[in-house]
This record gives sequence, structure tokens and C-alpha cells, in this order.
Amino acid sequence: MYDSDSFNSLKTHASRMNTPEFHLKHLIKDPCRLTDFSLNIPGFFYDFSRQRLDNSVRQTLNTLAGETRAKEMFVQMAAGNPVNPTEKRAALHTAARGFLDSGLKPENTQILSDIRTVARNIRIFSQDVHKGRITGTRKKKFTDAVIVGIGGSYLGCEFVYKALKPGRHPKINLHFLSNVDIDNFGQILTRIEPDTCLWIIVSKSYTTTETMANLTQVQAFLNRHHLNPEDHLVTITAKGSPGDDPSNPVRASFYMFDFIGGRYSVSSAVGGVPLSLAFGYDTFEQFLIGCAQMDRHAFQAPVQENIPLTAALISIWNIQILKYSAQAIIPYSSALSKLPPHVQQVYMESLGKSVDIHGTPLPCPAGSIVFGEPGTNAQHSFFQLAHQGPAFPVEFIGVLKPGYTGDQVTSKGVFNHQELWANLIAQTQALAKGRDHEDPARSFSGNRPSSLVVIPDLTPESVGLLLSFYEARTVFEGFMLNINPFDQFGVELGKILASGIRRQMAEKNAGTPSGGTPPDPVTAFYLKALFNGRID
Amino acid sequence: MYDSDSFNSLKTHASRMNTPEFHLKHLIKDPCRLTDFSLNIPGFFYDFSRQRLDNSVRQTLNTLAGETRAKEMFVQMAAGNPVNPTEKRAALHTAARGFLDSGLKPENTQILSDIRTVARNIRIFSQDVHKGRITGTRKKKFTDAVIVGIGGSYLGCEFVYKALKPGRHPKINLHFLSNVDIDNFGQILTRIEPDTCLWIIVSKSYTTTETMANLTQVQAFLNRHHLNPEDHLVTITAKGSPGDDPSNPVRASFYMFDFIGGRYSVSSAVGGVPLSLAFGYDTFEQFLIGCAQMDRHAFQAPVQENIPLTAALISIWNIQILKYSAQAIIPYSSALSKLPPHVQQVYMESLGKSVDIHGTPLPCPAGSIVFGEPGTNAQHSFFQLAHQGPAFPVEFIGVLKPGYTGDQVTSKGVFNHQELWANLIAQTQALAKGRDHEDPARSFSGNRPSSLVVIPDLTPESVGLLLSFYEARTVFEGFMLNINPFDQFGVELGKILASGIRRQMAEKNAGTPSGGTPPDPVTAFYLKALFNGRID
Repeated sequence: MYDSDSFNSLKTHASRMNTPEFHLKHLIKDPCRLTDFSLNIPGFFYDFSRQRLDNSVRQTLNTLAGETRAKEMFVQMAAGNPVNPTEKRAALHTAARGFLDSGLKPENTQILSDIRTVARNIRIFSQDVHKGRITGTRKKKFTDAVIVGIGGSYLGCEFVYKALKPGRHPKINLHFLSNVDIDNFGQILTRIEPDTCLWIIVSKSYTTTETMANLTQVQAFLNRHHLNPEDHLVTITAKGSPGDDPSNPVRASFYMFDFIGGRYSVSSAVGGVPLSLAFGYDTFEQFLIGCAQMDRHAFQAPVQENIPLTAALISIWNIQILKYSAQAIIPYSSALSKLPPHVQQVYMESLGKSVDIHGTPLPCPAGSIVFGEPGTNAQHSFFQLAHQGPAFPVEFIGVLKPGYTGDQVTSKGVFNHQELWANLIAQTQALAKGRDHEDPARSFSGNRPSSLVVIPDLTPESVGLLLSFYEARTVFEGFMLNINPFDQFGVELGKILASGIRRQMAEKNAGTPSGGTPPDPVTAFYLKALFNGRID
Repeated sequence: MYDSDSFNSLKTHASRMNTPEFHLKHLIKDPCRLTDFSLNIPGFFYDFSRQRLDNSVRQTLNTLAGETRAKEMFVQMAAGNPVNPTEKRAALHTAARGFLDSGLKPENTQILSDIRTVARNIRIFSQDVHKGRITGTRKKKFTDAVIVGIGGSYLGCEFVYKALKPGRHPKINLHFLSNVDIDNFGQILTRIEPDTCLWIIVSKSYTTTETMANLTQVQAFLNRHHLNPEDHLVTITAKGSPGDDPSNPVRASFYMFDFIGGRYSVSSAVGGVPLSLAFGYDTFEQFLIGCAQMDRHAFQAPVQENIPLTAALISIWNIQILKYSAQAIIPYSSALSKLPPHVQQVYMESLGKSVDIHGTPLPCPAGSIVFGEPGTNAQHSFFQLAHQGPAFPVEFIGVLKPGYTGDQVTSKGVFNHQELWANLIAQTQALAKGRDHEDPARSFSGNRPSSLVVIPDLTPESVGLLLSFYEARTVFEGFMLNINPFDQFGVELGKILASGIRRQMAEKNAGTPSGGTPPDPVTAFYLKALFNGRID
């Protein structure tokens, strides 16, 4: 990409866009601006009219999409080709909803059949739990489930759970035990009852250090309460992993497949089991239908009408060309409060890379920071910097109908949900337009780009559209950057170093003299502090 | 600052530090590195040995601190001088704990006396609630309190509440109603019982739009349940505000002072009332003692031994000179999960400015993005980018003893808390050292700066030290940048634009024809979508 004509042409465009005539306050005056710079499919509206681009930029970006064969790569991905070459794997998260009408089916028909089997098992299991046919050791109905998993094994599920909760009462409350920090475990114990709690262990390899350490705590907890693991444990793991071992029986086991990576796994059993327990399998399937709708669009729509591809191009334009170093995701919806951390993982883990798909170092590392909090909260937190500090692009998300439908009253003549929208609309305008003022402290330079994604409601379909939009956008961006958005070798070094330190600790715990090399002085200093509980 | 000799000298230093010989993997080999580049006071250890600096850089930074009179400004601040000139106010958050032994007392003795009165009222009120001398309309003891406030009116309090919770069982559970989004309100209703819930309205002016809109919902809710506002409402507000109006009686009212800004208000009644309800006033006072200890250190310690000042200098070095555009805060403690959003506000709202203290535009806007999630969670989310994507400095926080003290078992020979620390130590090393590998996808460039803050435990004193550290560090940085860290004019434009849009909505709700100008076409488009519940 970096040496292509269109990429160079974008740099020239950038010089033009950086001149005062192309300030956003001028661009948005065009009466056709919104029509020309927005895209729409049923249930999903994408307004990029306040991005710092014009028709020429857009055309060049679309050319770039063609040159980098982003859509062809997407088709190959969905067909099951090994688009994750470093790990010699396919990336088939689209297949997790491909048994619905996405139009995207892997070539290997066995895959859809396996996925269908898992889905059927999830349906039966969750129904049995809800009907009380499956209970704990003391024959009490389950009321709570704790997801024991870290990273991709919980972030997406947590996002969807919180997004759906305002609109429906959970049949089973979900809790998330991700951190190896014992305080995470301790806090969860204050929220559940031993007899009525299911523990769902999520780990593809069933060797993830944090998850295994937490599983050990859970097993000891069940033991203390004289509860059987085969009644209270559920595993979501790869076939044949230590979590799929008949000699360690569990209540139920659901398969994960090596062709679905953690951060893209929400629509697999990783999200399916917890979300079906929480809201019923039908709700989960409606969510999958939403995902499938966006997949079909990403697959079928031409470049210039393709929403996730256009969003990916805008991201490349903002990060690689205009050199913004971060992007914010600001949902104007408390229910979507866990969307930013989920997208933070999907985006930063997929695109934070220093080599291309062939292993060749990139001219500069790819990816950017993604962060965010819900609006209007963010307005009262870091939006001071968004308006008057160093600029960064913002992606706003608006929801036309809230989940809460109870009694409401107006304040200043508007309902709370309208107040939320008044602020949302105002922020997009303020960032773009700015304001001149005789007092420089009250001046706003404006010209700060933002997009606005609108979904009609917080139904499972809408949340599915949103999730799948961010997945598709991320893989499109990875394909265009010519990097592998499915591996994560950057987490390896820390794991290796941690295992050496863990060994030192274990030896100290056991009181056995270390046979290996002693720790370096800094590690020794911190180990001493940790074991003594103080810094001398 | 920008035209000082030391600032220019720092730029020269940067060219040197950017050469391969000054890669962190070399710098940290010096056996005195940790001793030379760490600072310590009882209960607080600051290790900056993995920052990209050497003794010459540090000396120049310390000179810069002297030239910019950072410490003198801090003293002036604590004495009550109007260090917030745009709003013609003092900034006396240190006075909120100044009646303890901080050595920092405002010159106006009335101030401490007023603060002491509020503290006494908080003590009496919280004791009365705990003992059941104050109850709701139906004479039931209070079990829950909802803080109705946004931005600085809740973020810091939420951080401290969650930090202290693992170590002690709350007498009253706290909930936070910040967002104007009705789903925020709806979710809180699922967690409380009307009869046993106190509603604490926090707004200095008592005009904050979101808080007033939520108050309206709360009043309607109380009304529906036949509960009296004078039994169930508490206000924390400025003397004489609409929330301090005897004709609208409430259960209790506590004063906020105009010399303490929202984001610095945790140690005032804003944190004091909720935290004393949750854990007892004595716990809150221990927290204040921790804050006061850090204040005294910030006030007394010479530049080269001053922890928050050194941290501020490192921030200036990283952001202004080395040009990192963001910084992460990664507490290896789930209990500190709300520290990053709190510091995000304190830092980005205080320092995200485009003009200096005299209103003169800065050469480039100040401030940087702050974001973060707890470790080890962050390792499984965005640390791929931290290791192999564009670099950013990280501030790690370690806690020697966890809050949870229940039964625990080992996994791989170590306790969970040790596993957490093995990862924490490993991450700091991996970022600094990097690793060469024949496969570029498995190579790590290293040279990525980080600090490590260590506190001994999650006691209120330790949490107070941490809170006050970030406050002092932020104001030091503001003073050195010669900006006003206490105002926030950058939030004004959005508010103005929102009020115009709200008026349009209110007219539409009322069915009265608009007397004013019609909305611009884009606003009209979104208003139509919102009122119709769909995009056509």
C-alpha cells in the first residue's frame, strides 16, 4: 500500500485538506454534504460528512481499496482460505453466523455443520437450565453464571450482555472473572450464591495462565462448599483440550474452533453460551442475524457503498495520512459502555503490528490507540482536550430508541433521551465548526473530524450489526495495510519473561533453593518487596 | 517554558536519547539504575528507571522545574492565591485535607473552619444513617445510596469506592447515576429498593443539565412510590444554590466551595458524603490523611526528590519533547479499575488547553490522551499494540497486598496475586528491553518507556496517596506548561449548541410552532429520525 500511486496521491490530497479553505466549517456548508457522505442499510446509518475529506479524497480512497484487493480478501476469508498465514489458519468468524442467511459460507461444508451442532447444543443446554432441568448439586435452579476468561474470551460477550440488558430482564445474571487479580475473584464472591452459580470456563487451549489460575480458585471454592464440579462447571474450549477431558467431567462442554480467534469470537460459543443463558437462545440467534446482515453487506456492497470498508478507508486516511495518533469511540448510550473496550481490543490487537503479511517490517508501525467512554459522560471528562487540546477523530454512536421504557418526565421541556441526542448532535457540530472568539481561551479551532453511527434501538439485531461492523472494518483495514489482523505475537515476550519470574516465586514459596540463574537485581528487589509486603 | 534555555537543551538531549546507544536495554544495565531513578516516601514508591532519560536529562528537567517556579506556584495554590485567573478563583483542594497535618493551610483561616464544619456534619450524618437514627419515609434503614452527578461529581468518588471495597464490606452500597441517558437510570432501578435508597445530588451550581434531568426522574420516582424528598434526597452543592433552598427541604445538605473544582473535589464533601456513608467517616478521614501526606511531600520535598513533580517533568519530557501522543495508566489491581477514567478526567480536562495562562495561544495544544485498563486484562487486549505498534509511555501501578484475604490456592506454584506481579514485572522489562528474533513478526523493538508506582496495600491511606499524587502531578505539569489547569472553557461550545437543539425538541414536544430560526438541515434530519424512531 505504502508505495502505491493512490497512497502517494492521498498525501497530496492531505496537503490540500490542510489548507484553511478545506476547514470542516466550510465543507459541511454544502447542502448535499450529508447525502453525499453518508451510507445506509436497514438498521445502520453511517454519517461521515464531518470527516476531513471531499469527493476527490474519497475516490482515491476507493481506488486504494480496489488496489489492495480488500473485498477479494474478505471473500477469501469467508470462504475459509488461510488468511492468517503466520498461524496457518482460516479466520472464519463469519461462519459462526453463516448458517443463517449471510450468503457467506465456507467452502468446507463440515464447518457449518459443526457450528450448527454447537448452536443446537447451546439451545438445548440453555433451555434446560432455564426450565430447571439442569440444576446445581443441591438441586437449586441457577440464577448466576460467572464467565472465567480473559481478553477475547469475555470482552465482546460483556459488551453484548450490557447492551441487551436494559431492554430485557436476564434469566441468569452474568459476571466476568477475567483478571488473575484475586480481588476480581473476591468481588465476584460477594455477588453470587454458591448453590445457584454456574462457572463457565472459556479458553481455547485450556492453558491460559490467568484462566487456569482462576479455575483453581473456583475448584477450591466449590470444594469448600461441597459442590460438584460436574454440576457447576461448564467449559468452552477446543476439542481435545484439557477442558474436554472425560476424566474431568463437567456439566457441559462446548467447542471453540481454531479458525475463530478470541477477539472475533463473540458470535461463537464464547458469546453464545453466556448470552443464551442470560437472555435465551432466541435472543442470541437474533443477535447473529444482525451480525449476518452486516457480513452480507460487507461481502456484497460495492466499495463506494460499503459501510465497514468506507470506515476502514477513513481510518487509514486519518491515521496513515492525516497522522492522527488515536481515535475515540463515544457511544451516546450507557448500554454501550463496554463497546469501547471491546473495539479497543479488536482494533489494537488486530492492527498494532510492525510487520506486513510477509514478515517485512513496515515503514512505521500500524494501528492506533482506541479509547472512549459513553457520552454525555465523556463531555464532562476528557472532551475539554477533544475541543481545545491536540485533535483526534471521534466516532459517535447514537441509538434512536433507548432500552428503558418505564415512566419518564421531561426536564427543560425534553425527555432524558432527547437531552442525550441534543448533546450528541451538538458535539459533532462543535468539533467540526469551532468558534472564533475575541478571548482565545474561549476560541475553538474546530476542524476536528468525527463520524456518527446511528442504530435504531438496542435490539439484538442492532447490537449484532454494530459488532459485525467493527469486525469487518478492522479486517478490511488489516487487509489494506497488508498486515495479518488475526495473529498477536506481540504478547509473547511478556509471557516468556513472566514464566521465569513465576518460577522464582514458586521456588521461594516451596522453600527450595533455586537451581537456575538468580533473578536480575531489579526483579529481586520487587520479589523481596512482594514477599515482605513492603518496600524497605 | 517553550523559549527557555532548558527547554531547548531538552530538545538536544532528545536527539541524543534517540540514538541506538541510548536504547533502554542499555540504560537499564547500569546496576545503580533503579536506585538512581526511583523515589520513595513511606507508602509510595516511584520507579522511573525505565523512562528514556539519563542524569543529564534529569538535571535539565529539574532546572526547568526551577525556572518555571512550579513549586512556588504550588505553595501559592495551597495558600489560597487565585491560581485560577480566568475564573478568578483559588484552587484549594489541598485545604479539603488541610485541617489534617499536611502543613498546607490557606491564609484565610475561615476556609479551614468552614471545611471542618462540613467534615463534622458528614461525620454526624453518616453515623446517624448507620445507626438507623435517620431512615427513609417508611422508617426503614438505608442500604443503598445513588450518587446523582456527572464528571468530577462522581468519577473520583467511584474510583475510591471501588478501590476500598475489596478490603471492607460497605455499610451502604453506592451506585452512580451520571449519564443523562435514561438507560443509566433504568439500570440503577434494578439494583435498589425505593424504601431503603438515599439519592445524593451533587452539583455545585445545581444547574448541571444532566444532573437536573436525572433529579427530575428521581423526584417522579419518589413520588410514584409515595416517598418524601425530604427523607430521601441529600444535596451536595454551593451555599445559596437552588439545591440549598429551605423551601425545597431535603434530608441533608452539604456545602461545596467555589475554590475546589469538580475534578479535584474527591476529598471534599463530593467524596466525603458518599464514602462516609459507604465505609464510615473514619475510613474517609484515613483517606484524607493519605492525601495530606502526599500534599506535604509535594510541598516540602526539593525538586530532585519530589515524586509528583518528577512525574510531571517526565510527562513533559515524553509528551512535549519525545512527542509521544498518549499515555496509558495500567493498574495491576482490579480494585483500581476506575483510576484510569478518573485520571483521564483530571489530566485531560486540566491540561488539554490551547492557550497559556495569559490567554496567548500555545505553539501547539497541550495535554495528551490518557487511557488504560487493569492488568493483566490489558495484556490480553491492547498490549499487542503497546509492544509492536506505535509506542506510548505506560504508567504501571502495583499493590503489594491485595484486598481479598479469603482462602486461596496456588496454580503453577504461585498464588494469584503473585501471578499478577510476575506479569507486572515482566511487562515493564519486555517493553524496555524488546527482543531481536530472526522472524521479524516475533521481534520486539523495545525502548518503550514505563514507570512503576508501588503502594503497599489498598488501605484508605494508600488510596489517598495515589489520588493526591495524580492531582499534584497534574497541577505541577499545568504550572510548568504555564497553562491554567483549573478551568475548562473547552466544554462551553457544545453546551451552547445543545441548548439550541434542545429548544427545537421542546417546541416539537409541546407542539408549539417555533418562533426562532429553524434547525439547519443536518440537525433537522436527526431530529426527524429521533422523533420517528427510524432513519428513512
